[in-house]
Amino acid sequence: MGPHPAVAAIRLAVRRALHDVLTAHRTQPAQSPSPAPLVLVACSGGADSMALASALAFEAPRLGVRAGGVTVDHGLQDGSAERAQDVAARLSSLGLAPVESVAVRVARTAAGPEADAREARYAALDEVAERHGAAAVLLGHTRDDQAETVLLGLARGSGTRSLSGMAAVSGARGRYLRPFLSVDRQSTRKACMVQSLPVWDDPHNADPAYTRSRVRHEALPTLEKALGKGVVEALARTAQLSRDDADALDAWAAEAERSVRTDEPGERARVTLDTVGLYALPPAVRRRVLRRAAIEAGAPAGSLFARHIEEMDRLLTAWRGQRALNLPGRVEAERQGGRLVIRHGSPR
Amino acid sequence: MGPHPAVAAIRLAVRRALHDVLTAHRTQPAQSPSPAPLVLVACSGGADSMALASALAFEAPRLGVRAGGVTVDHGLQDGSAERAQDVAARLSSLGLAPVESVAVRVARTAAGPEADAREARYAALDEVAERHGAAAVLLGHTRDDQAETVLLGLARGSGTRSLSGMAAVSGARGRYLRPFLSVDRQSTRKACMVQSLPVWDDPHNADPAYTRSRVRHEALPTLEKALGKGVVEALARTAQLSRDDADALDAWAAEAERSVRTDEPGERARVTLDTVGLYALPPAVRRRVLRRAAIEAGAPAGSLFARHIEEMDRLLTAWRGQRALNLPGRVEAERQGGRLVIRHGSPR
Repeated sequence: MGPHPAVAAIRLAVRRALHDVLTAHRTQPAQSPSPAPLVLVACSGGADSMALASALAFEAPRLGVRAGGVTVDHGLQDGSAERAQDVAARLSSLGLAPVESVAVRVARTAAGPEADAREARYAALDEVAERHGAAAVLLGHTRDDQAETVLLGLARGSGTRSLSGMAAVSGARGRYLRPFLSVDRQSTRKACMVQSLPVWDDPHNADPAYTRSRVRHEALPTLEKALGKGVVEALARTAQLSRDDADALDAWAAEAERSVRTDEPGERARVTLDTVGLYALPPAVRRRVLRRAAIEAGAPAGSLFARHIEEMDRLLTAWRGQRALNLPGRVEAERQGGRLVIRHGSPR
Repeated sequence: MGPHPAVAAIRLAVRRALHDVLTAHRTQPAQSPSPAPLVLVACSGGADSMALASALAFEAPRLGVRAGGVTVDHGLQDGSAERAQDVAARLSSLGLAPVESVAVRVARTAAGPEADAREARYAALDEVAERHGAAAVLLGHTRDDQAETVLLGLARGSGTRSLSGMAAVSGARGRYLRPFLSVDRQSTRKACMVQSLPVWDDPHNADPAYTRSRVRHEALPTLEKALGKGVVEALARTAQLSRDDADALDAWAAEAERSVRTDEPGERARVTLDTVGLYALPPAVRRRVLRRAAIEAGAPAGSLFARHIEEMDRLLTAWRGQRALNLPGRVEAERQGGRLVIRHGSPR
């Protein structure tokens, strides 16, 4: 008799990810006699990442991969240090080695508590991965997390890229892998249950003060009720399709930018573009070229909104002698005859 | 003192649409001494379309446009004929002429009652527009309707095109215009109220048996609660951005198809494509080329799902000697060496 279907599902997902790691490992130039690659699992102790840890512990030795684990103590709750030690002990008892528990200090910035915690977490994971020379770090995000991320992106209303959710592969040199993006959360819980793995439910996940928690516990269930049971799957599929679409359009914009540029790329904080060539591009591509130019001239990507790009676009599509446009980061866009000049402005 | 802000907003939206109609009208080759163009409003008697009718009646004479109205009696509720007469009388009393009330018979198909009613409605509007030689038909869809349409598209999970909502201009020769896509529903209600226009609330709009009604009354309010007040606006913006992205990618796919085709376009129900050229395309473009080819070979667009295209794609990206693939509409896709052959299959 084979394993429970939920256990089979999580193992299959991890096996596929490890195959990709091995393929990449084999094609790398070997430094000294190439050892088995090390793969770490990032584990909070919740069902998703405990299931991931258990599947990694099962599959890794069968594929000649070394498997370790990391848990991050954000220090945001009482008893978090003890809990981190507890999670680390569980990872070790699954047979993972090395296992580390890393305490981080979460800086408080304008980005908000969720973003701050994420920032600190990834910095810690990066550090541990570097120190151990890990080939990959597995993250436990499920299809449900992906659906939530798409809804959060939808609320920004900033288009195809913001609907593309989390990537299956991300980070420096593709370090972070998300094998569970096509596995539903329910299966990870089930897999923990049938393997008698204790899991820890982060109270933050149910705290309605957090946007993601409201999306999870209020928005998605109501959407399912209104639109039918397939909503989570549809959102996850939207993520993949949107990511591919955004990648293709970004590639087009990069090529189009070269064809309409009238200066040498690399000129400091100044981009000039040919208005006739720009005008001939499809709006979706033209706006991406304008955005790239504004960023190259020094506008911070995070402060550049759709309305800024829209106004730049109007220098082309609704030209009636507008004066220079102010963009974030003291960048100016100005039409000068057949040129659009985007440059870092002088203080006035 | 100017009009109430809500009235100013609906008039501005209509004025812009009429300017576009006039611009198109003037560039058309005149048949006989060109009369003032006729613009019709499609009016159900609800707040959105009554507001639209009132704004059209106000703006049209100022711009040298003739303005008329149509109301469609779907015959689906008791008393619908009387109500249609009543709406027609209100349109006339706004000064619109000609005004027509058209009774339609709604066919019942597998598409569902909402789609069936829409089909019958547009056929009737087309007929009336043709008969009067109307330059345009205005539709009252608001930003809220647009947001609902995006959510309904999201539930299908079929990508960027399905997120693009309703077009501001659509139909044969761009006949249908939606001037209110950037006006919120609340403003149309307010505009009717301050102009003392009676409005009729279609009970279907509140009937939870209809998906759109559940989206309007349950899903969107919960999304707003979870994600913040800007959700409707974000969804409407997503529609516009997605539409532009989908248009650009469709244009790319049309061009890419020409470059990878190895047969003469127009050959009956058979398309052959060069596998090397296909493989070199970005996935988002390649999948669109495959979809176009399947449709040209005879697959019905509505039955062609993401998983079909995914399987076709695997003949290129994961080739291991698969046999011919069956697609909807008795279409087959088969790899033959360096060619992908998509053709209408023989009965077996």
